[in-house]
Amino acid sequence: MPVSRRDFVGGIAAALGYLGVASEVDVFAQNRPAGQGAAPRPRSTMDEYDSLAKLASNENNYGPPESVMKAMNNAWKYSNRYGYPDGNIVQEIAKHHGVKPENILLTAGSGEVLDVVGTAFLPAGKKVLGVEPSYGSVYQHATSIKSTAIKLPLGKDYRQDIPALIKAANSHASELGFVYLCNPNNPTGIIVTKQEVKQLLDGIPKDMPVLIDEAYHHFVDDPNYATSVPYVLEGRPVIIARTFSKIAALAGMRLGYAVASTELVQRMRPFSMGSINALVKHGGAASLKDTASQAEVKKRTIDLRKKTAAELEAHGYRTIPSETNFFMVHLGGRQVQPVIEEFREKKVLVGRPFPPMTDHMRVSVGTADEMARFVTAFKEIFPAKGKVSTAGL
Amino acid sequence: MPVSRRDFVGGIAAALGYLGVASEVDVFAQNRPAGQGAAPRPRSTMDEYDSLAKLASNENNYGPPESVMKAMNNAWKYSNRYGYPDGNIVQEIAKHHGVKPENILLTAGSGEVLDVVGTAFLPAGKKVLGVEPSYGSVYQHATSIKSTAIKLPLGKDYRQDIPALIKAANSHASELGFVYLCNPNNPTGIIVTKQEVKQLLDGIPKDMPVLIDEAYHHFVDDPNYATSVPYVLEGRPVIIARTFSKIAALAGMRLGYAVASTELVQRMRPFSMGSINALVKHGGAASLKDTASQAEVKKRTIDLRKKTAAELEAHGYRTIPSETNFFMVHLGGRQVQPVIEEFREKKVLVGRPFPPMTDHMRVSVGTADEMARFVTAFKEIFPAKGKVSTAGL
Repeated sequence: MPVSRRDFVGGIAAALGYLGVASEVDVFAQNRPAGQGAAPRPRSTMDEYDSLAKLASNENNYGPPESVMKAMNNAWKYSNRYGYPDGNIVQEIAKHHGVKPENILLTAGSGEVLDVVGTAFLPAGKKVLGVEPSYGSVYQHATSIKSTAIKLPLGKDYRQDIPALIKAANSHASELGFVYLCNPNNPTGIIVTKQEVKQLLDGIPKDMPVLIDEAYHHFVDDPNYATSVPYVLEGRPVIIARTFSKIAALAGMRLGYAVASTELVQRMRPFSMGSINALVKHGGAASLKDTASQAEVKKRTIDLRKKTAAELEAHGYRTIPSETNFFMVHLGGRQVQPVIEEFREKKVLVGRPFPPMTDHMRVSVGTADEMARFVTAFKEIFPAKGKVSTAGL
Repeated sequence: MPVSRRDFVGGIAAALGYLGVASEVDVFAQNRPAGQGAAPRPRSTMDEYDSLAKLASNENNYGPPESVMKAMNNAWKYSNRYGYPDGNIVQEIAKHHGVKPENILLTAGSGEVLDVVGTAFLPAGKKVLGVEPSYGSVYQHATSIKSTAIKLPLGKDYRQDIPALIKAANSHASELGFVYLCNPNNPTGIIVTKQEVKQLLDGIPKDMPVLIDEAYHHFVDDPNYATSVPYVLEGRPVIIARTFSKIAALAGMRLGYAVASTELVQRMRPFSMGSINALVKHGGAASLKDTASQAEVKKRTIDLRKKTAAELEAHGYRTIPSETNFFMVHLGGRQVQPVIEEFREKKVLVGRPFPPMTDHMRVSVGTADEMARFVTAFKEIFPAKGKVSTAGL
């Protein structure tokens, strides 16, 4: 059983002590703002926050590129408006994917997609099926609306076990509302190949909705991976979740969307808020056009991920090969929770625990300076051991 | 039966013709962004939009004050972040009302409060009770989630008929999920007095939730009105919806909140997105402190509302006395829909139809220049008649 986010944060904050109640940043922030189920939490000051190496939340630490900043700043005149020109954001997204505007549900980050799918497709105790660890938001939302999740363990080499998912989807078909697949998976960073996605969709009941969370799509290099958007065009009941929070560096601005059939979008729409910030609509539209900046972020991120992983392995600690802007490192027998606190004392924020993989730590790939600070801290916390090769390979 | 927002917009857009599909502003935008139930709609260009007198959506046409703009611009560094210092927005709102942080549900505009209350309190076909016309979002959301509304007509002088609401709440008690009260009411601008609110709360089953929408709270001058927040402290099952979209001029930025008991907030939280833009958290916190700017907006708005109403009455057209930043004018026997189109041709946006009051038009109070353009257009569209006094008084 995973510890709930609230319990975890409360426990850590109490243990650390130096997080006063008057402080204002949630240094244990996860991949989305505190929302459902979470009461307001202590936050530290703006200055303290600025001083931290931020490797906890898979953010894009470079921030939005100039083209996107310009588009957002040009939209200030709509800050007091409702029905303003919105940069044709829905149409631009639809064009980007070769689908129709009615195939797009615009949301305040992809977290809203995950919640909306849960609320729409888990009525009357229907369950969600997926793996663990994965991005836990879907499972947490299910719990908050009195549903439950069927969570399968990861398979060999920390991969999502597609045959096991197919078997469970069929044997539990009548209980299930939908299947959740995070691709690449968070926290492992490992892809489900395009062949495996097809195997999954072909193997489960053909009317069973599958939510495919492609938050980290833009960082993948492996040619065996592909987006599942084409399955929407094929008429399969897949819902693709995308976000502007990662490659586009707009996490704090809140923009994401679902791509799905018109019918599935219509089932989801009543539970979505349709309440998106004016600036980020313009920022999102500009972001879709700035492919050069995104390519640069991707390149820098992958280079730094490989460099950091090599340094940790030279120090004797295995990493899991990732296709994203984060990776996991094996802690050589230690449990992650006290390690998180040791990094925090060195002004480095690292990822939260992902049960049951609590012998690993998730590290986001930040700037070169931040990764250097991380490696220095790692070497202070962990003794050198014999050089190892990449885990599981 | 009210015409749905989607049907209405489609019909008008088709009738007008000059709204091309490539254009990008929804000139018939209502009091919140297109959300649930609404497919993407045609929008006009940024230049065209800028040229319009915007009196359709009860916006604050002055825009955010300097203090708020400064706070938002200082928060750009969080645009790529999740768990950043958030200006202590929840704590500041709680302090503003003298309640605890756990009594606040922070939302992307008060529209999210209305949706969340609907989803949380209308399970299994439970109904919402309120008056018509009122702000229709609650009723539309109920329909979208397969619930229904019991809508009572307005009483004498366009007032909400409290004895009728009490009677209906009791006779339909087992069918109802909650009661909706918009105070002051939209589109009439008329308050429910503090005595009447107490009468309502005392007269209905004591465990029946009442959603009190105080979006226009800050514009009220009448000493017979008071906020219902103190009823939260008394332990009554009231949920107060507030927004930063009106007096605070942050409609496009999306910030609002509910004030309610911890228990009711906990029931709502699973259906809220917790997905608020980083800039507007800081803007909202600054806004709560800038009481001088808000007092100035209130004064200008009330002065212009009174001046405009007097001009229309001198021209022979009655207005309904309002306590908000909008008012209704009687159209001397004409129906509102073609009149909206005539104003649109003169580059003035006015409010949508509010059935069954389709012989009235809702006009938002904009700047002095916009109100002058409105009065000029009104006199071109409507012939002078004998001077009248305020309707119903």
